[in-house]
Amino acid sequence: MNDEVLSSIFKRASNEAYARKLGMRLVELEPGHAIVEMVPQEDTTNIFGMTHGGAIFSLIDEAFQLSCNSHGTVAVALNMTVTYHQPPDRRSILRAESKEIHLSSKTATYEIKVTNENGALISSCQALAYRKGIRLPFLDEEP
Amino acid sequence: MNDEVLSSIFKRASNEAYARKLGMRLVELEPGHAIVEMVPQEDTTNIFGMTHGGAIFSLIDEAFQLSCNSHGTVAVALNMTVTYHQPPDRRSILRAESKEIHLSSKTATYEIKVTNENGALISSCQALAYRKGIRLPFLDEEP
Amino acid sequence: MNDEVLSSIFKRASNEAYARKLGMRLVELEPGHAIVEMVPQEDTTNIFGMTHGGAIFSLIDEAFQLSCNSHGTVAVALNMTVTYHQPPDRRSILRAESKEIHLSSKTATYEIKVTNENGALISSCQALAYRKGIRLPFLDEEP
Amino acid sequence: MNDEVLSSIFKRASNEAYARKLGMRLVELEPGHAIVEMVPQEDTTNIFGMTHGGAIFSLIDEAFQLSCNSHGTVAVALNMTVTYHQPPDRRSILRAESKEIHLSSKTATYEIKVTNENGALISSCQALAYRKGIRLPFLDEEP
Repeated sequence: MNDEVLSSIFKRASNEAYARKLGMRLVELEPGHAIVEMVPQEDTTNIFGMTHGGAIFSLIDEAFQLSCNSHGTVAVALNMTVTYHQPPDRRSILRAESKEIHLSSKTATYEIKVTNENGALISSCQALAYRKGIRLPFLDEEP
Repeated sequence: MNDEVLSSIFKRASNEAYARKLGMRLVELEPGHAIVEMVPQEDTTNIFGMTHGGAIFSLIDEAFQLSCNSHGTVAVALNMTVTYHQPPDRRSILRAESKEIHLSSKTATYEIKVTNENGALISSCQALAYRKGIRLPFLDEEP
Repeated sequence: MNDEVLSSIFKRASNEAYARKLGMRLVELEPGHAIVEMVPQEDTTNIFGMTHGGAIFSLIDEAFQLSCNSHGTVAVALNMTVTYHQPPDRRSILRAESKEIHLSSKTATYEIKVTNENGALISSCQALAYRKGIRLPFLDEEP
Repeated sequence: MNDEVLSSIFKRASNEAYARKLGMRLVELEPGHAIVEMVPQEDTTNIFGMTHGGAIFSLIDEAFQLSCNSHGTVAVALNMTVTYHQPPDRRSILRAESKEIHLSSKTATYEIKVTNENGALISSCQALAYRKGIRLPFLDEEP
């Protein structure tokens, strides 16, 4: 059952419109744990010509979303706090790793770190999800 | 000078690659205050087919970025906390309003609210910027 | 019923051990809204001889706690984000005002501001509560 | 020099009024790392008779404060985000451990975890400090 959930999420993630739009790819997924990479896109610059904070956050959110739904039931974001340590180089592939630090029946908490290709810390996030306790809807939709 | 700064930021914002990518448009800009709208795009869906949290956050971040640079000197995001109250309807134009609640020589703090077309609250954010105290670089680049 | 709830919370607040310990006093209470004041204590200093951040946060948390339980059902803190704008004068009475910005069946969100006697902003907080949906236990315990 | 800084902070911490008021004791201190314990006090209860969120946060803030000043220069809290996972037992000694996850010339970021005597996670915090770049004033005041 666990493997079925994970492979179903992997499939959904690879078909996700927003992930494709931003060049994000799920690399690793286990219960409560996800790694997502983002290949730099030409059109993610802000008014300074740097990578937009929204793009970096989107990478964080993608890793968070996949890790908190990895238990097979629907979890939605309640609150996320992100600290930006340093701007990434425009050409660097970024990697977000989400780790579950607490799980209860109603909520789950994650720490997500974004690093560049050299392993330097770009951003850190603490995120809180609400667990609805219902089975992921797409598990039953898939062929 | 103030008007020059605001019109220069307006121009940068309308040419910003990420804003175009996500369908965001700066609607109002004053010192310490910005309103940005996002027209729903087909390809901003998450694994549930809902608007991705990263897209909603990008709207918040765009309003934050523009409001904290509106004083004419460079400000960068240090920390942002977002609470998601309810998922938006996929077809609704979203609006983010950023209001400055505190300004010092080194930092500035903003409250940003995202509402849908009916004025219902979708997300709320508290954001902290570091003020570098240097003139916006693109003010001097523009013709 | 509403008045009964509010007066019962007022009574609990005035008898609260932690409020007395820190010199905190509930000043105003309405559904989704609370104002609490803190009279400076000799023994709330940190290693620099300034008011400890924990004391300022305690004032915020007291206002938050009372406002989110003001609807008559139990609400508990899930997440709180505080930004410190400036250190308060050691002799100033501090005031925290908590305002509800969103209410749903399961969660509620508040903005809490701490000001000094001159109305200058000391700290700002965004706080999220989980609503258990059960009646406040002390409503039935009171004579 | 490092040892001198650490032993000076240890001394200030043990004499700190607020630490004594709340039953907090610095247990371990290294550059960028601190462990503080809090022995339960009778008078730290909230309106439900549970440990007040402000007391738990004060423990977090004490560990944060000591860890971010451990480099010998003044650091002050800019922003702190705390998630409450579960209420602690009233009799349990609580322990907060603060770990530095990023350090730059102007800012430093910490993750602080509160656990009970059994090692169960009570609260988690991400905290951001501003580094003033001036020597700790009490280093020169001490005999």
